Amino acid sequence: MDIPAQTDTAPVLLQSDAGAVRTLTLNRPQARNALSNALIAALSEALAQADADPSVHVLILTGAGPGFCSGHDLREMRAHPGEAACSTVFASCSRMMTSIVRLSKPVIAAVHGIATAAGCQLVAACDLAIAGEGARFATPGVALGLFCSTPMVALSRAVGRKAAMEMLLTGEMVGAEEARRIGLVNRVVPDAEVLPAAEALAAQIAARSPLAIAYGKQAFYRQIELPLEEAYAHASAVMTRNMMANDAAEGIDAFLTKRAPTWTGT
Amino acid sequence: MDIPAQTDTAPVLLQSDAGAVRTLTLNRPQARNALSNALIAALSEALAQADADPSVHVLILTGAGPGFCSGHDLREMRAHPGEAACSTVFASCSRMMTSIVRLSKPVIAAVHGIATAAGCQLVAACDLAIAGEGARFATPGVALGLFCSTPMVALSRAVGRKAAMEMLLTGEMVGAEEARRIGLVNRVVPDAEVLPAAEALAAQIAARSPLAIAYGKQAFYRQIELPLEEAYAHASAVMTRNMMANDAAEGIDAFLTKRAPTWTGT
Amino acid sequence: MDIPAQTDTAPVLLQSDAGAVRTLTLNRPQARNALSNALIAALSEALAQADADPSVHVLILTGAGPGFCSGHDLREMRAHPGEAACSTVFASCSRMMTSIVRLSKPVIAAVHGIATAAGCQLVAACDLAIAGEGARFATPGVALGLFCSTPMVALSRAVGRKAAMEMLLTGEMVGAEEARRIGLVNRVVPDAEVLPAAEALAAQIAARSPLAIAYGKQAFYRQIELPLEEAYAHASAVMTRNMMANDAAEGIDAFLTKRAPTWTGT
Repeated sequence: MDIPAQTDTAPVLLQSDAGAVRTLTLNRPQARNALSNALIAALSEALAQADADPSVHVLILTGAGPGFCSGHDLREMRAHPGEAACSTVFASCSRMMTSIVRLSKPVIAAVHGIATAAGCQLVAACDLAIAGEGARFATPGVALGLFCSTPMVALSRAVGRKAAMEMLLTGEMVGAEEARRIGLVNRVVPDAEVLPAAEALAAQIAARSPLAIAYGKQAFYRQIELPLEEAYAHASAVMTRNMMANDAAEGIDAFLTKRAPTWTGT
Repeated sequence: MDIPAQTDTAPVLLQSDAGAVRTLTLNRPQARNALSNALIAALSEALAQADADPSVHVLILTGAGPGFCSGHDLREMRAHPGEAACSTVFASCSRMMTSIVRLSKPVIAAVHGIATAAGCQLVAACDLAIAGEGARFATPGVALGLFCSTPMVALSRAVGRKAAMEMLLTGEMVGAEEARRIGLVNRVVPDAEVLPAAEALAAQIAARSPLAIAYGKQAFYRQIELPLEEAYAHASAVMTRNMMANDAAEGIDAFLTKRAPTWTGT
Repeated sequence: MDIPAQTDTAPVLLQSDAGAVRTLTLNRPQARNALSNALIAALSEALAQADADPSVHVLILTGAGPGFCSGHDLREMRAHPGEAACSTVFASCSRMMTSIVRLSKPVIAAVHGIATAAGCQLVAACDLAIAGEGARFATPGVALGLFCSTPMVALSRAVGRKAAMEMLLTGEMVGAEEARRIGLVNRVVPDAEVLPAAEALAAQIAARSPLAIAYGKQAFYRQIELPLEEAYAHASAVMTRNMMANDAAEGIDAFLTKRAPTWTGT
């Protein structure tokens, strides 16, 4: 949540590519990267572009300045207090969060400093998350009379119910190791190594067949909401399609003959 | 499960208020607080009353005597062995457990000693749980030829499948730290501090806007059963309603101007 | 995944009974117990037979040789590369995995060495799992351009989303302790004690009423996919039927009078 007022003069979202890894950097450091309407729109657009760009295999999401993301821009929201404006903000933010899940490419959160409210939700929504030792996570809306109801959607799908409820009902900060314990992040590294660690992980994944990963990621979130038999029917169909692709033939032959595979993404 | 026979002379459920925190104490200590029909009825009634009483913001559930709760009163059930009587007990108990989840106010289990069978279910059904170091949890029905099938509903939603299955298939006791590791309880404290710790946690939550918490708790259990897009649609609608409430305006303005908020629950 | 070519001369699946515990041993050690079509068929048949055989109360699934199971037999699959053959393999394997879940009897995985791809899926699909300290788990299909989409169905129901995604997207090996931390296995023991520990656990469960366990296991996987109120309605109905069974009357009376129960399985 945003304390200082800020007129954004720099772009609210930065983008840089290294090989097949695209890094998106929330860039409102004075506002602790609060998700203004402009930033939500920029992020939505950047995610859609990355999804459509075959040169991008993996995304990293990080924040400029002392923290990852402090959630919605409350100052902006209070300046437009009508129900319609409010509803539009939550709907567009929810669509952006959902697009991370529905994206055909993995998204890795690289988290330093605070990740609160919708910032914590961003971490929960990403496929993978690396946290610095000093990272802290919270859903503090309850302290402001505004329960973190949209953040809970992502949070409650990443961690157990009791852990989620404790964060939501107390609003208290959770440290990086505890975040790992409950399943909110995958790895904890020294603060200075957050981005390098995320980049190494991204590069590792980016070296794989993007087609196989697209099949897999999309099937993951689809099957997890299905009853068991339907989940297997869906996953079997996807795996058969994957097996018919050139990359699977190439990958299996390379494995069986102990050579390096060459992916074509087909 | 209840070994000694007992005719209840004292009230089976005690109730006490401290500020906006209501503590409900299972009070059949000689029967290790086994859930007799009378106790299930008393608990159901007390939960409904607390839900309707605006002076109550948070509930604590605890047990009198050496343990938290030993589950159903098997002696009583065997004394009324017909299918209709049995079905009525499980249905009324399931309704009571469900009402904890559907309640608009958080319920915190304060657990010392044993919490077994439906007693373990009570802990799993509560939003939060504090356990004493000596607390022990089990679903031991399997040892009696009566699988803990209704307890599993709450247990399997609180902990992972393998952990739940191990408890259900072995019936073995799980210690407090292991219960925390698997997600059944939030915190482990020295036995003498269980109730004080629960009271401190309850007081912290009771100081928040009860309206925001009602929105949040009810949305939590609703959205968690929905597919992702529907979950976000529900949570967005709830958060917009929450944002339109006086307490959110008050809370955000208090936050932005660094003063303490005053909740009206509207 | 299978490196060495192998013509199976020995039976691909071994079976041995000790009391009411049946042990099924994957027996293609030179192929690291890769799931050839013949092995999937043998396992499916053995599971169905065990389900129908009242003398069997619990199953153990283990592997001959240096590892548990290396997943599908890729050499065999590449030898029959058509879409129809491929689809048949994934469908029959998914049915076999599903039958473990739907079986009326508990299945315990006893895991030493590697459990990869569909081998990791087998572990995730079992009700309980014991791992040796040297056991390692992976879903490495991503490295071959063939995402582990069917394994993810079982994996994502056993462990949290971030942990599952890390295994699926990186393909990296996870050690036994980490597998326990994330919920993939129940217990870690010295490698030499994997099978004895599984046998002791199986014997403990096999001494219970098989009727109560059949009620319980089947209700577990049924209720976990239902909304809360429906889950309770189902579990209450099952528990009432269980209560009407002779074994429950016997078990409760034995418990209340402090004697050992005698199960009839009725």
